[in-house]
Amino acid sequence: MSILTLTTDFGLKNSFVGTMKGVIWGICPQAQIADISHTIEPQNVLEGAYTLWRAYPFFPAGTVHVAVVDPGVGTARRPLAMRLGEHYFVGPDNGLFTPVIEDAEKNGWLREFVHLNNEKYWLPQVSHTFHGRDIFAPVGAHLAKGVPLSELGFPITDPLRLQMPKPEKTRDGWRAHITVVDVFGNCTTDLPAAALGSGDFARHPGRVSRSFAGTTKVVTTVTFRLRGREIHGLATSYGGHQPGEPIALVDSENFVEIAVVNGSAARQLGARVGDVVEVVVES
Amino acid sequence: MSILTLTTDFGLKNSFVGTMKGVIWGICPQAQIADISHTIEPQNVLEGAYTLWRAYPFFPAGTVHVAVVDPGVGTARRPLAMRLGEHYFVGPDNGLFTPVIEDAEKNGWLREFVHLNNEKYWLPQVSHTFHGRDIFAPVGAHLAKGVPLSELGFPITDPLRLQMPKPEKTRDGWRAHITVVDVFGNCTTDLPAAALGSGDFARHPGRVSRSFAGTTKVVTTVTFRLRGREIHGLATSYGGHQPGEPIALVDSENFVEIAVVNGSAARQLGARVGDVVEVVVES
Amino acid sequence: MSILTLTTDFGLKNSFVGTMKGVIWGICPQAQIADISHTIEPQNVLEGAYTLWRAYPFFPAGTVHVAVVDPGVGTARRPLAMRLGEHYFVGPDNGLFTPVIEDAEKNGWLREFVHLNNEKYWLPQVSHTFHGRDIFAPVGAHLAKGVPLSELGFPITDPLRLQMPKPEKTRDGWRAHITVVDVFGNCTTDLPAAALGSGDFARHPGRVSRSFAGTTKVVTTVTFRLRGREIHGLATSYGGHQPGEPIALVDSENFVEIAVVNGSAARQLGARVGDVVEVVVES
Repeated sequence: MSILTLTTDFGLKNSFVGTMKGVIWGICPQAQIADISHTIEPQNVLEGAYTLWRAYPFFPAGTVHVAVVDPGVGTARRPLAMRLGEHYFVGPDNGLFTPVIEDAEKNGWLREFVHLNNEKYWLPQVSHTFHGRDIFAPVGAHLAKGVPLSELGFPITDPLRLQMPKPEKTRDGWRAHITVVDVFGNCTTDLPAAALGSGDFARHPGRVSRSFAGTTKVVTTVTFRLRGREIHGLATSYGGHQPGEPIALVDSENFVEIAVVNGSAARQLGARVGDVVEVVVES
Repeated sequence: MSILTLTTDFGLKNSFVGTMKGVIWGICPQAQIADISHTIEPQNVLEGAYTLWRAYPFFPAGTVHVAVVDPGVGTARRPLAMRLGEHYFVGPDNGLFTPVIEDAEKNGWLREFVHLNNEKYWLPQVSHTFHGRDIFAPVGAHLAKGVPLSELGFPITDPLRLQMPKPEKTRDGWRAHITVVDVFGNCTTDLPAAALGSGDFARHPGRVSRSFAGTTKVVTTVTFRLRGREIHGLATSYGGHQPGEPIALVDSENFVEIAVVNGSAARQLGARVGDVVEVVVES
Repeated sequence: MSILTLTTDFGLKNSFVGTMKGVIWGICPQAQIADISHTIEPQNVLEGAYTLWRAYPFFPAGTVHVAVVDPGVGTARRPLAMRLGEHYFVGPDNGLFTPVIEDAEKNGWLREFVHLNNEKYWLPQVSHTFHGRDIFAPVGAHLAKGVPLSELGFPITDPLRLQMPKPEKTRDGWRAHITVVDVFGNCTTDLPAAALGSGDFARHPGRVSRSFAGTTKVVTTVTFRLRGREIHGLATSYGGHQPGEPIALVDSENFVEIAVVNGSAARQLGARVGDVVEVVVES
């Protein structure tokens, strides 16, 4: 059974995503295809990178992840495919795969990158504006069907990397940043809960380990400051608090998240991606 | 062939839904997965309940329906799985399954409920905020793969029930309520067309029967009052009326629906879920 | 392996689309189902027609395309199924298939149309408002399973046709029209790039050929006028231009498209479907 995922900024109104599935099934008819997101903000490579990164560890070994947020389509930017541990990734060389590459490095996984150039595995005609259909979908389908990575292009070692936000150590804690705002208005930060002695980074034992070189002492008192508001302590769930109350808790990826119980932290606190969250620890 | 459905308030922007599919295919790679809706209003359990209830009878026997609208995630609310007739359901114990349980009761189907507690069928690590991924998706996949319900937890008989709106008999008709507003702005009510002697409740002969203990005499004259507007008579389709005209007709589930021809009843009449529709019958 | 596609205006909030998948899998459990779009503007048959037309050639031979944008549901409008070359189409007789029929005519493909009337291949109960579920989904599933077209209804030769916009030849060029605005705000026109000596109409060699009876001389100088703005020349990709600059380029279907680099032509130029684009050629 061959599994592919799709992460794009192609939206749901036009036929772009359906067209990619047609191409994939023309090559690999039995492929199972999961949509991770197609409503990445147009051309927001960083949002695409986070979205794919959160999902991929939960797919089985051998899954092929095709991701296309591609403002440079039709220019000289390289088309890539890569193997990182047991997962394959296909898409433009613009930093979209930075956090998954970082995972592979941290975990010491196999890392192989190829610059796609074997047109035998592309559609016969390649447009200037839709490489998702003409290059990335067919290459992904051939990978899913068993074509070796080395057949698809020539090896490279320098995929483009984004500068991902990282929490900074301060005198009395951390300076964290909001990385993702989800549909509920919950605001995830780049601060691993392990920095506060919470959470557990072996998400999928044997697959992904997200270690963190910070303190792992249990934190007894912690304060979060965001947009002029203060939140005291780390909650364990949304329940057990008053509706409308802002809380900090450990999110489903073991990062610190700012939320409002039965509400939207993004709307109620005015929080946005990139905002600083000051974390003050007494322990 | 194993079929699962997903009904959630997880939205389409983030990777939540894709992640659940990865978990499911990791356990049951051949599963076919249908999205019923992922744009349930956040934490609106009643909307989730109606949405799943309208769709499930059209799936084949043996389908596993995973539904997650779960404001109580991480609290003591119970995780459930159940068999109702030929269908399986998995999700939080918060009333989300009330109308499907009512269907099963009306039809005298087999009803088995378990409180999920066998962690062997969950992901190895369970977060406090994403049981859709960590408990409900894997349990659904194991059910689809053939694990018996009784393996997954211990039997219970008291799943939490919502108070579902019901039409009230009045002196000269019914006091109905709008239950669902669809993408076209059509407003479905809780009044079965059978109450007006119309419609046919054997939607899927041999599977679901939605009987109604009201009059089944053919109604010759009926008036609907909603937000200060009056609609006379029951139409048989959207066609054959003037564009912009408000009409009442029998919806695809055999309930009375208020619509505007080639327009939106919700927008043009200002109608909302919960609104009362007065139904006056002369017959 | 059986592949179906779905193109509707049913939206993503309600359970309509999921319900259709349940019906399909009840008949043809191994079917692969691709969503082409479910957010066609309600009852906008022309938008549905373009959306399906852009996607279908990329699906394998034998694919069944079910399309439902159906303001006349429940009236006397005919339910149709058809074979056009190697593809099957199922839906209402309201012009939704006009451009795919035109493709078949241009390419001299086999064309067979039937008026669906064999209720044996429908759901046992047919509503007045949801033929997507009750007629079109089951007919599509039976086609995918191998039931011959001739079993499903009686032959007809006069499917309803929409008047599709076509570019008009002017003294010094073309009068084109915007046909589709995509999620990025890119505005596709009805002018084939071949009219300007660009593009290549053999999209899928051996499958679809979109010839154009215009000039195919290479155009050296061309100006596009739209909503008071002028754009000079035909670009080859979005890259290599200043962000915010309006450009004209060849889209992924080999039509002329108006775009704004890293922006939205629709928003920045105020462009809409139906707008005229004057094309002035010096060559």
